[in-house]
Amino acid sequence: MSGKNFTLHTLGCGSAKPNLRHQPSSTILDIRGNLFMIDCGEGAQLAMQKHRLKFSRLNNIFLTHLHGDHVFGLPGLIGTLGLIQTGGSITIHTFNEGKKILSNIFNYFSRDLPFEIKFNVIEPAKGIIFENKAITVRTVPLKHRVPTVGFIFEEKPDLRHINRSACDFHNVPIAMMKRLKEGEDYIRPDGRVIKNEILTTPPTPARVYAHLSDTSFMPELADEIRGADLLMHETTYTSNYEKEAEQRGHSTARQAALLARSAGVKRLLTGHYSSRITNDEEFLKEATEIFPDTILNKEGLVIEV
Amino acid sequence: MSGKNFTLHTLGCGSAKPNLRHQPSSTILDIRGNLFMIDCGEGAQLAMQKHRLKFSRLNNIFLTHLHGDHVFGLPGLIGTLGLIQTGGSITIHTFNEGKKILSNIFNYFSRDLPFEIKFNVIEPAKGIIFENKAITVRTVPLKHRVPTVGFIFEEKPDLRHINRSACDFHNVPIAMMKRLKEGEDYIRPDGRVIKNEILTTPPTPARVYAHLSDTSFMPELADEIRGADLLMHETTYTSNYEKEAEQRGHSTARQAALLARSAGVKRLLTGHYSSRITNDEEFLKEATEIFPDTILNKEGLVIEV
Repeated sequence: MSGKNFTLHTLGCGSAKPNLRHQPSSTILDIRGNLFMIDCGEGAQLAMQKHRLKFSRLNNIFLTHLHGDHVFGLPGLIGTLGLIQTGGSITIHTFNEGKKILSNIFNYFSRDLPFEIKFNVIEPAKGIIFENKAITVRTVPLKHRVPTVGFIFEEKPDLRHINRSACDFHNVPIAMMKRLKEGEDYIRPDGRVIKNEILTTPPTPARVYAHLSDTSFMPELADEIRGADLLMHETTYTSNYEKEAEQRGHSTARQAALLARSAGVKRLLTGHYSSRITNDEEFLKEATEIFPDTILNKEGLVIEV
Repeated sequence: MSGKNFTLHTLGCGSAKPNLRHQPSSTILDIRGNLFMIDCGEGAQLAMQKHRLKFSRLNNIFLTHLHGDHVFGLPGLIGTLGLIQTGGSITIHTFNEGKKILSNIFNYFSRDLPFEIKFNVIEPAKGIIFENKAITVRTVPLKHRVPTVGFIFEEKPDLRHINRSACDFHNVPIAMMKRLKEGEDYIRPDGRVIKNEILTTPPTPARVYAHLSDTSFMPELADEIRGADLLMHETTYTSNYEKEAEQRGHSTARQAALLARSAGVKRLLTGHYSSRITNDEEFLKEATEIFPDTILNKEGLVIEV
């Protein structure tokens, strides 16, 4: 274990019609102390407080699409940040029309903010949209009633780990350590080459989180998310409502599980539940029949990717 | 008692910075089965569900001013109404700039609603802005950082109550009853006039609810709200923060109580609490020292006006 956290917090996993069981969509990824929000349904700012996620650590908000249940928490969140945060910036990753309508709202309700709101205008297409030292975020276009993208968060390859006793045995100087971590061999003063594999152990594998919501069933996405450590795939309905799912640009729990299985992901996380299905266990039951490593999403869920 | 309800429900009585103790502003008046909403902070639609207030009974929303903590629940509420309500209309009473910015939001996020959104454009001035069979709603301009109005909800004068035994004694025909209730005397077939006061008892007094938030202390409002049955006056701060209250266009609990006393209202209701004051009892303590009939507001409060 590298000790570098990559933690998912579910703030809301309901769908458009809010109810007393579920909040509208919002997910936070805590990656090495930085918070990344995916979608911001009404109430997300309160949920952050409930879950003790500090506003000051949030600098990036990714919007899958521009339906209200994924967006209506933003004006309040930005307003609150304006009351407590000074300096710095927050970047909203959204389509050009998102930039337009949200700018209008912020310009009216949140003038003179003490920090900068930046927009990273993205396309409903495949591509890398964000990168820092730790991660890369790329989009995949989804099939919904409006332009929609999924987000794939991927850790950058980690450095190799030093094998202390092997290094001591070969008298490797401290100054070499950084290059060893990067994969270089060590050439001893007597000219003998010590292979890197002897002096280090492999890096912690880079973890991958795929967030696919809202979308119709897209079996063709398997290659995009192959082997992901965690796939959050919307399960708006159960198979009883398969027709409705197709008509409304959503998926059933069974379809999510089929994609999880064919993509060989490690775990599937459900979500975006229709208010029509009042027993969440139905989503889990249906998905686990096809893909046993399914986790039932709920508000307050915290899991390591 | 006329049995005609005039009930206040508090959905949120916090101020701009939401926290785990208080929701942003929203109040519902249930007047003879019709719901009237005053302000719609984020989360109001969920609070309505919590309080079992039916969306289908809501047809009028009154906005005191256009700060986010009084408005950001509207896009979600309208979106949800769009999913469950068919036909009819909802009227939003707000300034012209409220109509503009809210129309933009609804036009983008809530196209093709199955009901009509009407705007009643009001002025930040004194005037009657709404009337139906049961009530009149008038505005009073308040002093805040942006144009703001208070709302005074006043029942229309009720009809007089029939005194059955007196009517029987004087053989008043059934056909006369409506006119008796309206205050007419009865002229017997022999020409003798029976005074209305003998045949009826006075109507239930018309009740008055005054909602003053957000505002600086305005002692001059006493005449506008004289004798009101219930005055909700913002108490954003306690006197420790009196300077801040003045600067930010707010009031202290003491100032609210001074106005309640000089206006001779029956009861004062606190609200719009700053998140800085963590013990609500401080508001109550400060107000009751000046005006004993003070009620401490909280989410979920239900009282008869």
